[in-house]
Amino acid sequence: MIPATPTVFLLTDFGQSDHYVAVMKAVIMGRCPAVRLVDITHDVGPQDIAEGAYLLESVWAWIPAGSVILAVVDPGVGTGREPAAFYHDEKTIIGPNNGLFGYLPRELEGRVLDRPELRLDPLSDTFHGRDIFAPCAAFIAAGGHWSLLGDKPAFPAPLPGDDDRPRIIHFDHFGNAITSIRGPLAAATDIEIPGKVRCPIVKTYADVVPGQPLAYIGSTGRLEIAIRNGNARASLSLDKSDIVTFIPPPPA
Amino acid sequence: MIPATPTVFLLTDFGQSDHYVAVMKAVIMGRCPAVRLVDITHDVGPQDIAEGAYLLESVWAWIPAGSVILAVVDPGVGTGREPAAFYHDEKTIIGPNNGLFGYLPRELEGRVLDRPELRLDPLSDTFHGRDIFAPCAAFIAAGGHWSLLGDKPAFPAPLPGDDDRPRIIHFDHFGNAITSIRGPLAAATDIEIPGKVRCPIVKTYADVVPGQPLAYIGSTGRLEIAIRNGNARASLSLDKSDIVTFIPPPPA
Amino acid sequence: MIPATPTVFLLTDFGQSDHYVAVMKAVIMGRCPAVRLVDITHDVGPQDIAEGAYLLESVWAWIPAGSVILAVVDPGVGTGREPAAFYHDEKTIIGPNNGLFGYLPRELEGRVLDRPELRLDPLSDTFHGRDIFAPCAAFIAAGGHWSLLGDKPAFPAPLPGDDDRPRIIHFDHFGNAITSIRGPLAAATDIEIPGKVRCPIVKTYADVVPGQPLAYIGSTGRLEIAIRNGNARASLSLDKSDIVTFIPPPPA
Repeated sequence: MIPATPTVFLLTDFGQSDHYVAVMKAVIMGRCPAVRLVDITHDVGPQDIAEGAYLLESVWAWIPAGSVILAVVDPGVGTGREPAAFYHDEKTIIGPNNGLFGYLPRELEGRVLDRPELRLDPLSDTFHGRDIFAPCAAFIAAGGHWSLLGDKPAFPAPLPGDDDRPRIIHFDHFGNAITSIRGPLAAATDIEIPGKVRCPIVKTYADVVPGQPLAYIGSTGRLEIAIRNGNARASLSLDKSDIVTFIPPPPA
Repeated sequence: MIPATPTVFLLTDFGQSDHYVAVMKAVIMGRCPAVRLVDITHDVGPQDIAEGAYLLESVWAWIPAGSVILAVVDPGVGTGREPAAFYHDEKTIIGPNNGLFGYLPRELEGRVLDRPELRLDPLSDTFHGRDIFAPCAAFIAAGGHWSLLGDKPAFPAPLPGDDDRPRIIHFDHFGNAITSIRGPLAAATDIEIPGKVRCPIVKTYADVVPGQPLAYIGSTGRLEIAIRNGNARASLSLDKSDIVTFIPPPPA
Repeated sequence: MIPATPTVFLLTDFGQSDHYVAVMKAVIMGRCPAVRLVDITHDVGPQDIAEGAYLLESVWAWIPAGSVILAVVDPGVGTGREPAAFYHDEKTIIGPNNGLFGYLPRELEGRVLDRPELRLDPLSDTFHGRDIFAPCAAFIAAGGHWSLLGDKPAFPAPLPGDDDRPRIIHFDHFGNAITSIRGPLAAATDIEIPGKVRCPIVKTYADVVPGQPLAYIGSTGRLEIAIRNGNARASLSLDKSDIVTFIPPPPA
């Protein structure tokens, strides 16, 4: 499908005070002159693949069919990780296959981005967002088919260092802590981050009094920790590395 | 009027490090595929309706005819405040009717956004930017008439807690403090924020020596407090809650 | 050349929390309704012309032919510095001629922006981005020829206060320090910032062990100071005013 207005969404950890994002956009515009560019965010924590994966998971369902997503959180740029594109539900997502796509729907079909003619020449060791991912995003935005991006199938890599211990992966603007835990949950009375907070798992904010901490399944299906009418991140000194523990209910 | 390039301007207090703004944009694009999206700012202070109202006032006159403005600073989301749209001068502005539109021209005509078919289903309690305001903005951007957004007339709500005591409502990037006071002013020699600053009301920066504080009517018609060649916010430890007092001239 | 999608790139030191950037965009849209707007950055250090010049230099080559660049870092607004436009390689760049264009290709041809009919009326003393530069950018984006922006030729001003002592001009998002020094370099064993760092000039990160500082010619042709797997700005307490010294090799 070639959309009437070709659109590329962008997510990176590049920040907004350098020229890096504009250079990627310029490369895309050079190859797909009619493109519309929409920022998701460029404030993913530096090299924080899990946070990037969470934000992509959160926005994915809302992206219109026909769109391209260019996502670059790439601590392994210049090493062995594969550049890849994945397709599902009429959307194409492009970036380093390092776990960044690990929270997306399992139905993704992929290709390794191995076509030299779809790369800038010379190819740098440090800026594949410009040299590989932007040209491939432009190719799709301009009407190219995702399966032409490479011959070799790709499969979404799992998140790196994912030891399955539940942890905080993102703080939103309001100080709520989003965890790696997905609902629905088996029975547990409380969650705890030792030394910082212990609170009940409830349905809504109204289940606790103002100023009290709570845990609940948020709109993206993940367990979140918040303070009613407050900022959990600041008040509880939470960090992204914090490990979350379930407190089982007392024996009956 | 259906503009050649349908355009939605966005102002929120959502910040730029989450997926929230991109989700609203994606909803709009899904319903108005040709839309152009322009950020005003997403860095309004959390739930700071007065700051949002000031920024909307400041940008309003410059917005091209035919445009839509989507504004969300919404501490009362999920409670009784009305979702609304207002129209004037060929521009439509959409958001929570909680005072956010209280500084706009008095000629605004409005509707309560009460059409279920213009909402996402299911409707969340916490994200009306996505579920109500974005679909309504897309409806107008796609050529719909503002009066079709609802049957019930709406009137801009006044700013909440506005006790008429003059205060600081915004700091700009250069540290100038914009106050709720509108010019022209009756006779006063000085303004004062007790314990922090006392300075004369003058015409321009050149009326004081470098390093000295001053007050003047700025480009949006409001009294501003600045330091010539300096940063008033930092140097004077100003806060948004600071109350501004007029010092009357001495008796003749 | 009138591009299919007229495009204006923007770079300023206005930040992103005020209405200033949106007002400039609105003025451009009012005069070139089909325009596409792309932010380079609005986080140039306040009045830091050298940092703006570096970022423009870094993005210039990637900007597609036919584009307009609107650049405003303008400490002398309202004083004698000339408003100007420069053209080269089918790109037009517009802004204050105060050194901001001092790092661009020497082939630039220019005009002083002296046409009253291309300015807003009344003309403010403080916001030429809105009143002069935005209307001129819209004129070019809408198909006007750069030579019609004024009668008087303009030539890029050198950077102000440029005493040729090598210094840091920008920190990127990863804490690398970009200097005013351009490669290739004559023989030198080390560079030094007295009291802060002394390190070798090498080819790549791999030439030092993790945690060690290094200097190298970066992708824009300038000498950069970094720490392998680290943040040089934070670890070495670097400032933009730091002067860089070359340590000559010992006599043979």
